[in-house]
Amino acid sequence: MARFLTNREENYSQWYNDLVIKADLAENSAVRGCMVIKPYGYAIWEKMQAELDRMFKATGHVNAYFPLFIPKSFFSREAAHVEGFAKECAVVTHYRLKKSPDGSGIIVDPDAKLEEELIVRPTSETIIWNTYKDWIQSYRDLPLLINQWANVVRWEMRTRLFLRTTEFLWQEGHTAHATSEEAQEEALRMLGVYSDFVENYMGVPVVRGVKTESEKFAGAIDTYTIEALMQDGKALQGGTSHFLGQNFARAFDVRFTNREGKLDYVWATSWGVTTRLIGALVMAHADNNGLVLPPKLAPIQVVIIPIYKGNEQLDAISAIALDLKASLEKAGLTVRYDDRDTQKPGFKFAEYELKGVPVRLAIGPRDAEGGTVEVARRDTLTKETVARAGIVEHVTALLEEIQHNIYRKALTFREQNTYRCDTWEEFCDIIENRGGFVMAHWDGTPETEEQIKNLTKATVRALPFNNPDEEGKCILTGRPSQRRVLFARAY
Amino acid sequence: MARFLTNREENYSQWYNDLVIKADLAENSAVRGCMVIKPYGYAIWEKMQAELDRMFKATGHVNAYFPLFIPKSFFSREAAHVEGFAKECAVVTHYRLKKSPDGSGIIVDPDAKLEEELIVRPTSETIIWNTYKDWIQSYRDLPLLINQWANVVRWEMRTRLFLRTTEFLWQEGHTAHATSEEAQEEALRMLGVYSDFVENYMGVPVVRGVKTESEKFAGAIDTYTIEALMQDGKALQGGTSHFLGQNFARAFDVRFTNREGKLDYVWATSWGVTTRLIGALVMAHADNNGLVLPPKLAPIQVVIIPIYKGNEQLDAISAIALDLKASLEKAGLTVRYDDRDTQKPGFKFAEYELKGVPVRLAIGPRDAEGGTVEVARRDTLTKETVARAGIVEHVTALLEEIQHNIYRKALTFREQNTYRCDTWEEFCDIIENRGGFVMAHWDGTPETEEQIKNLTKATVRALPFNNPDEEGKCILTGRPSQRRVLFARAY
Repeated sequence: MARFLTNREENYSQWYNDLVIKADLAENSAVRGCMVIKPYGYAIWEKMQAELDRMFKATGHVNAYFPLFIPKSFFSREAAHVEGFAKECAVVTHYRLKKSPDGSGIIVDPDAKLEEELIVRPTSETIIWNTYKDWIQSYRDLPLLINQWANVVRWEMRTRLFLRTTEFLWQEGHTAHATSEEAQEEALRMLGVYSDFVENYMGVPVVRGVKTESEKFAGAIDTYTIEALMQDGKALQGGTSHFLGQNFARAFDVRFTNREGKLDYVWATSWGVTTRLIGALVMAHADNNGLVLPPKLAPIQVVIIPIYKGNEQLDAISAIALDLKASLEKAGLTVRYDDRDTQKPGFKFAEYELKGVPVRLAIGPRDAEGGTVEVARRDTLTKETVARAGIVEHVTALLEEIQHNIYRKALTFREQNTYRCDTWEEFCDIIENRGGFVMAHWDGTPETEEQIKNLTKATVRALPFNNPDEEGKCILTGRPSQRRVLFARAY
Repeated sequence: MARFLTNREENYSQWYNDLVIKADLAENSAVRGCMVIKPYGYAIWEKMQAELDRMFKATGHVNAYFPLFIPKSFFSREAAHVEGFAKECAVVTHYRLKKSPDGSGIIVDPDAKLEEELIVRPTSETIIWNTYKDWIQSYRDLPLLINQWANVVRWEMRTRLFLRTTEFLWQEGHTAHATSEEAQEEALRMLGVYSDFVENYMGVPVVRGVKTESEKFAGAIDTYTIEALMQDGKALQGGTSHFLGQNFARAFDVRFTNREGKLDYVWATSWGVTTRLIGALVMAHADNNGLVLPPKLAPIQVVIIPIYKGNEQLDAISAIALDLKASLEKAGLTVRYDDRDTQKPGFKFAEYELKGVPVRLAIGPRDAEGGTVEVARRDTLTKETVARAGIVEHVTALLEEIQHNIYRKALTFREQNTYRCDTWEEFCDIIENRGGFVMAHWDGTPETEEQIKNLTKATVRALPFNNPDEEGKCILTGRPSQRRVLFARAY
C-alpha cells in the first residue's frame, strides 16, 4: 500500500495529499472546498478534542453552544472584523425550496426570501458578544470563561484537505473579564495550553510569539500564536489566542459595573484551534511509508498480527494474542488484533505502517513456542524479539519512548532548519532553496513586511517571546532594528 | 428563585419556558428560532453525548464528519425525501459580502452568486449516500456503521426551546448493509440503544413501536420510534430509527457485488436523537421547585452547603466539607462545595432545587460537632440527618435509589394516564380533557388517521411492538381493526 505514496522528497505536496487519502483520514466531498473526515481521521480528532477539552476544563472553562447563523447587521458592528471576514462568507438568503412551475425540478422559493440575510459563522465573536450583553451587568458576573466546539465556514478559493477547507471543525473560546490585565493573562494562559498540547501530545515543537499588525486577527488588539515547522521547511500556525481589548464590548455595548461602582466596557479574549492540527500532525512526522502518529493521539496504539500456516497454528497464536491484547488493554492501551484471513502479513505490516500505528507486535509459530513476540516500532522502523513475560511493561515504556523520540526528532529538524540571517541575498537563498525558520532583523513597518512578502512569499510568522534585544539592520531596508523576528513561508 | 416559576398546574407551557430559562439551560438568540445552549444545559448534553457515544461504539459504530452543505440537486434525487424537507430548508446562495456602493454598510455581493445553491443540512442521507457510492464496491466493504455528531437546520415556523428549534444538535447514524434483514436488525438494535438510554439514563419510560405511513421519515420504508409521556399528558417522540430499504442506494446508484457475485443495491438505515431530549428530561420529571435531574445525567450530583455564622464556624465546616467532597469525588461522584458568602443558605437551597441537583448535603455547627450531615433528596424533597461515617456509601446508594425512583414515578404516571378506549365520545373526552396515551382501534387508513387528527389534534404515535391481536372496531369509522394503536397529542 505504502508503495503507492508519492515520494516525499520528490513532491511534498502530492505526498501529503496521497497520504491523507490513502491513510483514510479524509477526502474531498462533492461540495467545493468541504471535506469528508473519514472514521480514522475523525478518531484522531476525537482524541485531540478529549485532551483539549480536559485542559480547558482544568483551567476553569465550560462549554456552551451559540447559533450557526449570524445576522448580517451584527457582522458590520466591529469595523476591522467585518473587513477581515466579508470576502469569505457563506450567505443564507432563503428558507424554502419548492417544485419548479414547469415540474422539472426543485427551485429556491422566491417568496421565502429572508428580510435580513444570515451569515454562516466564520467565527462567533459577534453573536457571542451580542449574547454576553444580557449576561453581564456587574463585576460579579465576571469572568465568563466559555468554550464552544463547532463547525465554521470560510469561503476559501484554494483549499487543501485539513490545511485549508471551506468548512472546518474547531473550538473557539470566548472569555469576558473585568480588567485588561486579566484578559491578557487569559490570552497567554490559553496560548500556553495550546503549546502544551501541540508539544506534549502532538509531539510538535512550537515557537510562541505575537503576530504583527498585518497578521493579527480581524478585531484583535494582539494575536498570540504558536508556529511549527513542517518537514518541507514551511511554517504552520498551530493555534492563536487573541487579546480583543474592549473592541467587541464597544461594538455590542457590553458594559459592567466595576468594583468601584463605575460603568466600564468588558475586556475580551478569544482563542481557537482547528482540524488543521491533523494536517500538522501528518506533515510534521510522516514519512514515505505513511503516517507516524504520536502514541498519545493514535486511535490504535498497538496492533497484533499473527503469522501462521493453517488453522491449527492460527488457533494457538490467537489464544496467545487475545490474552496479550487483554493484558495490554488492562494497562490502558488501545489494541487491535488483526486476524483477517483475506490479507497476508506483509500487506498488513504495510497497512499499519501507512496508518502510523506506533507499535506492531507479530507472533509466529516459533514465538508461540518460545514465549517471544516480535516488536516493531513505527518511528524508527526497527524490530526486536522480546520475551512475552514482561511485554506489557516493555510496550508501555516503548510507547513513552516513541512519544519522546518523535518530539526530539521534530525538534532536531527544527534546530537544523532555523537560520540567523543578516543579508538579503542569504535570506532569499534560504527562503527559496532551503526553507525553514529564518530569524532576521526587520524595521517594524507594515510596508517592509509587505514588500518582503511580495518578493519572497515569506511572512513574519511571529515576534517570538523572550527574544533577546539585539541591535541590527533590517534585512531589506537596512533601517535599524532592536530584535530579530521569525520569518518563513507558511501554510 | 423557584418562586418565580409559573405554577405547572396553571400554565404548563409557561412553566416549561420559565424553567428552561431560569435554570440556565438555554435561551432564545437574536437569530429567529435558534437557541443559545447555556453552560448548564450544555453540560447535560455532554453527559448525554458521552453515554450515547459509548453505546454506539459498543455496538460497533465509528464516528465521522460529512459536509454541512448539500448541493440542491442531491436533494431532489429521492422523491419522498425532498418532498418532506423542501419546505424548511435554509439556502446558501452567495459566498461573499462587500461594502455597499453608497458606503452605508455591508451588502451581499451580487457577483458572488453560487452556480448551484447549497442547502444547510436538515439531515444528511443525501450527502452521505453520495459519498458511500465511492466507499462500497463489494460485500466485503459492508456493513458500514457510521455515526455523526452535528448541527442541523430545519426552518421551523413555531419554535420552542429544545423541543423545536431551527438549528439543533443531534447525532445521525447512517449504516449500509448487504441484506435487508441485516439492515432491519440494525434499525431495531439502535432503537433498543435509544430505549435503553432514555429509560435507564434519563429515567423516562418509553413505548417502542413503528410509525404509520403518514408519520414516517421522508424516504424511509419503516420508521421505528420511542414515545414518552410528558407530565401534561402529551407525547414526545424521543428518537427514531429508520429502515430505508434501498431507496437512497437507488437514488445515488450505490451498488455492490454480493456473495453470489451479483450486483445489488445496498440496504440502509439511519437513526437519530437530538437536543430535544433535554426538553423531554425537563418535562418528564421537573416540578414547581425546578428541575429534577436523574443522577446519571446531572452535571452536579451532590452539592454541599455550609451553614454558619462567622469565619470561625465556616473554617471548621469547610475543613469537613472539603474532606467530604474529596471522598465523594474519589467514589466517582461530581460534587460542588458552595461556600459563597454573597448568598444565604436558603437562597442556595432554592437555587440547587431549581437546577435539579439530586442530593444536597448541609453542614451546620451542630453537624460539625456531632459528626453528622443533613442529607436532602431533590426527587422527594425529604431530609434526614446521617452520620458522617459511612456517608459516601449512603450517598452512592441514595443516588441509585433516586435514579430508580424517578423512573418508577414516571412509569406510574404513564400507567395512570394510559387508557384503553372504545367509543369516540370517550376518546374525545380523554384527549381534550385529561390527556395521556390512548390505546384504541383504528381502521388503518391514512384518511381516518388524518380525520382523527383534524378533529382532535391527536395522532397515531406508534403501532406498539408486541401488541396483542384483538378484534375491534375503529374508534371513528367503526370499520374492523385487528389491533389497538397508540394515540396522543404530541410535541
